[in-house]
Amino acid sequence: MSSGTIRLLITCPDARGIIAAVANFVAEHNGNILDADQHSDPHEGEFFMRLEVDPAGFALNRATFEEAWRPTAQRFHMRWRVYWGEDVKRMAILVSKQDHCLQDLLWRWRTHELAVQIPLVIGNHDELRSVVESCGLRFEHVPMTAETRARSEERMLATLKDARVDFIVFARFMQILSPSFVNAYPQQIINIHHSFLPAFAGRRPYHQAFERGVKIIGATSHYVTEVLDEGPIIAQATLPVDHRDTIDDLIRKGRDLERSVLASAVRLHIEDRILVNGNKTVVFA
Amino acid sequence: MSSGTIRLLITCPDARGIIAAVANFVAEHNGNILDADQHSDPHEGEFFMRLEVDPAGFALNRATFEEAWRPTAQRFHMRWRVYWGEDVKRMAILVSKQDHCLQDLLWRWRTHELAVQIPLVIGNHDELRSVVESCGLRFEHVPMTAETRARSEERMLATLKDARVDFIVFARFMQILSPSFVNAYPQQIINIHHSFLPAFAGRRPYHQAFERGVKIIGATSHYVTEVLDEGPIIAQATLPVDHRDTIDDLIRKGRDLERSVLASAVRLHIEDRILVNGNKTVVFA
Amino acid sequence: MSSGTIRLLITCPDARGIIAAVANFVAEHNGNILDADQHSDPHEGEFFMRLEVDPAGFALNRATFEEAWRPTAQRFHMRWRVYWGEDVKRMAILVSKQDHCLQDLLWRWRTHELAVQIPLVIGNHDELRSVVESCGLRFEHVPMTAETRARSEERMLATLKDARVDFIVFARFMQILSPSFVNAYPQQIINIHHSFLPAFAGRRPYHQAFERGVKIIGATSHYVTEVLDEGPIIAQATLPVDHRDTIDDLIRKGRDLERSVLASAVRLHIEDRILVNGNKTVVFA
Amino acid sequence: MSSGTIRLLITCPDARGIIAAVANFVAEHNGNILDADQHSDPHEGEFFMRLEVDPAGFALNRATFEEAWRPTAQRFHMRWRVYWGEDVKRMAILVSKQDHCLQDLLWRWRTHELAVQIPLVIGNHDELRSVVESCGLRFEHVPMTAETRARSEERMLATLKDARVDFIVFARFMQILSPSFVNAYPQQIINIHHSFLPAFAGRRPYHQAFERGVKIIGATSHYVTEVLDEGPIIAQATLPVDHRDTIDDLIRKGRDLERSVLASAVRLHIEDRILVNGNKTVVFA
Repeated sequence: MSSGTIRLLITCPDARGIIAAVANFVAEHNGNILDADQHSDPHEGEFFMRLEVDPAGFALNRATFEEAWRPTAQRFHMRWRVYWGEDVKRMAILVSKQDHCLQDLLWRWRTHELAVQIPLVIGNHDELRSVVESCGLRFEHVPMTAETRARSEERMLATLKDARVDFIVFARFMQILSPSFVNAYPQQIINIHHSFLPAFAGRRPYHQAFERGVKIIGATSHYVTEVLDEGPIIAQATLPVDHRDTIDDLIRKGRDLERSVLASAVRLHIEDRILVNGNKTVVFA
Repeated sequence: MSSGTIRLLITCPDARGIIAAVANFVAEHNGNILDADQHSDPHEGEFFMRLEVDPAGFALNRATFEEAWRPTAQRFHMRWRVYWGEDVKRMAILVSKQDHCLQDLLWRWRTHELAVQIPLVIGNHDELRSVVESCGLRFEHVPMTAETRARSEERMLATLKDARVDFIVFARFMQILSPSFVNAYPQQIINIHHSFLPAFAGRRPYHQAFERGVKIIGATSHYVTEVLDEGPIIAQATLPVDHRDTIDDLIRKGRDLERSVLASAVRLHIEDRILVNGNKTVVFA
Repeated sequence: MSSGTIRLLITCPDARGIIAAVANFVAEHNGNILDADQHSDPHEGEFFMRLEVDPAGFALNRATFEEAWRPTAQRFHMRWRVYWGEDVKRMAILVSKQDHCLQDLLWRWRTHELAVQIPLVIGNHDELRSVVESCGLRFEHVPMTAETRARSEERMLATLKDARVDFIVFARFMQILSPSFVNAYPQQIINIHHSFLPAFAGRRPYHQAFERGVKIIGATSHYVTEVLDEGPIIAQATLPVDHRDTIDDLIRKGRDLERSVLASAVRLHIEDRILVNGNKTVVFA
Repeated sequence: MSSGTIRLLITCPDARGIIAAVANFVAEHNGNILDADQHSDPHEGEFFMRLEVDPAGFALNRATFEEAWRPTAQRFHMRWRVYWGEDVKRMAILVSKQDHCLQDLLWRWRTHELAVQIPLVIGNHDELRSVVESCGLRFEHVPMTAETRARSEERMLATLKDARVDFIVFARFMQILSPSFVNAYPQQIINIHHSFLPAFAGRRPYHQAFERGVKIIGATSHYVTEVLDEGPIIAQATLPVDHRDTIDDLIRKGRDLERSVLASAVRLHIEDRILVNGNKTVVFA
């Protein structure tokens, strides 16, 4: 839907006239705004904007945009990024042994539902190699143990860099990576946690949910930060359960939630619809 | 939340530069855009926009707005409306015997959840008089039979005009009114139908749903047009049912859906968040 | 729907032949089973059963039931309760200043959706007196401060006993009562907490939710135990929110969730559909 | 969860003592009831029951069951079926060109989420051959045109018989089959229709939904009968859409609904949880 469009993402202190200035900038360069969203956070005094511009007829390009845009950006003290629609993002997927999130992402990639390239899937186990390779994709097995963690992370980082990866999806990747790994891809690592966070953070959330006797289970997709399960939440969903559901039922029902919540988050990320606001997200869905 | 703001609603043929022109207009008159939404319908080539402007500092007012705005409006062939936030809309409620939607609207009015005045409730039965009068509101009983319909409608119209009503809510009002009545309040009459339209239009939708053996029931709020249950849909919701649910259970569960879907639609209407696009709605929620 | 029926609730160690023994007992006394649910918890080895029997033709009554039933109950080491359908439960409601849950319960009582008597509403503030008294119900104002808590609780307990209350609903009652109060009504006090527990237990859950940036909010109804917000969960529901929602929006949207989740829990309790299993519930909905 | 258990499904006129008679029968043959559900339809006077019995210790088997059971069945005029848990049902899948429902069913089969054998997938197009064959399953291409329909159906029926298929899933199979085909597998053909039936029956439901401007879309799984889209509904679900959703968005979002609703229905069918009651279903979930 929004593939091929130019997307401008802006964060700045709230002020009068931002929308007019941005819209004028686009109009002056013969651009057509296809979509525009903005949000003011009155607590923080921050302003967030996302603009989709039709590349057809737009007088600026990758080479000339920044210089033209700089005065507006400086006037409003903007942090900004522009995404050129012809760039297809490069997504790495990290997995362990469970395949449901991986399979779902691969299926959405094959059917062009997710406009993304997948240069690489990394597993800390080797189980999912054939799933990946049968799609014609590269699979790297990087075992991780307590002793090898540092070296394994280095190897993964080198591999990801080599593959020019833009962002990383933890598709039920059951390892906790170090801050130095996480900080190499700020706001570019998406995780799926199998609970409605902040409930049941940490290990074995379905077991925790079963023990507590909740009547809903959930899944949460979030950006990974240094603090486990505490990063900015992108998407969440829940579904009802009852006393007849065993832990295995929770796990089974949860798989459907996990894959759909993760796919939503990945889609939003690919389409540059997420702006991070402190430890929260502004999602222009 | 959005009470007190100035709201500008625009529909026009899609074209380049509309957002810039509108944003400039606001900026030139020292206005601050609090919220802006737009939508392009590529099938119809129509453009829809809703703008919320902070009245503080805005250089235009009710007396001066139109003349200042006219050139922009004409340039883009806009149909437009402006709502001045200090105007509190005047809502009439039409009821029959069932009270759940009425009670819910009255409660939301009393708690200021709905920023609206209620000059009048009309019932074609007298049963709900005390509910209304105990809130200090006026209740008019206008009986309707096949023979008296024309005269009853005239009387209702006169009463509504006298009470300077802006819009009308059918809160489970079980009468079908004539085109001439409906056309007196175009896109200003909100109905709640107790099914997920277009399924189960017409009479006794829960009985129809029970007969069909559906596993979900629903409710639909829509603007009333000349054709029964066919007006532009504003809001819909569903909930699961199963084989144990009797017709009475469907009716009971449905009441909760009806009142919440109707309240959502009324809220959207009050906040001028609905634009009609042919027989569909653009809802800037 | 199930009003007027005899309900037998059973908990016992799981064993062969329980269903046959119970069904035979009913058949031998010329009873007709209208509904039967059972659940085995394989972890705990516990068996749970709920039976609805048509009083028409049933050869046993309040005076003769226990002696006839005792051999079966003893054979399987049952804990059991029987509810005679002609008994209408007596429900007290405890409130503070917020009225939405109270209003909703009162409306469902007036429309006979909840088959219950309400001998008494107690408020630790006096604000909701007129709401209650306008329904012809008794309102008691029992102020509570840190100093008066013990005496206030005593007064409440005495009042509740006098009014022969069967169970108590905390309809957004903003006080934490002592273990001795709670233990006077074991599994007979229903609370509504305005979050999807175990997330955001304690004070100001909507503020906590806003701070965390969750994409869903929820409500939880549970039996009150000595440990705050930790009792057996009866019902939960969630709804989506996004970055545009202020704390006030969360509070507003949450009210609709709270009242519907609480009403569900109260309905389940009235119809004797809840069995407590440790700190969890078996809900035969 | 319920794999391996013996399941007894009963439909008969409602009467006193059925549960006791059935429970006694099981107890007398040393059976342990693991799960029992029943439902009375007061309109039709019909009684429905589903029993799961632990095969461990049960004194009857495939050879001896019917004679032992006949007196009870005759006494209550039962129609009944028994499923022996060691029998794994044989499911054929019929497809056209779209793969999402097929992929989902295959994934659930590979992960043992669906305890089923898949002897055969038939496509009226050849596109999905490699998907099927890469799972080690047999794919048959049976083209269908207006002229060849009768012969194609004959060929399919012969193939299905040869493969000893128990039931058939139309996984977005875009052909309407004749009554004689449908009647060869009564209550054994499961279809997924991409709307919340009865709304938008027939062709191109997402286009119909888009035209009508609904705010929810849905999917419906039902048994196929002679009348298109009118068979007994097994499962339905909906999700919200809005004015920004194009027809392509509806199709994309709908795919997720379709696959999950269809998987639910197939699971319920495999576990013998569905009883047909006229044109409705009793689903003991």
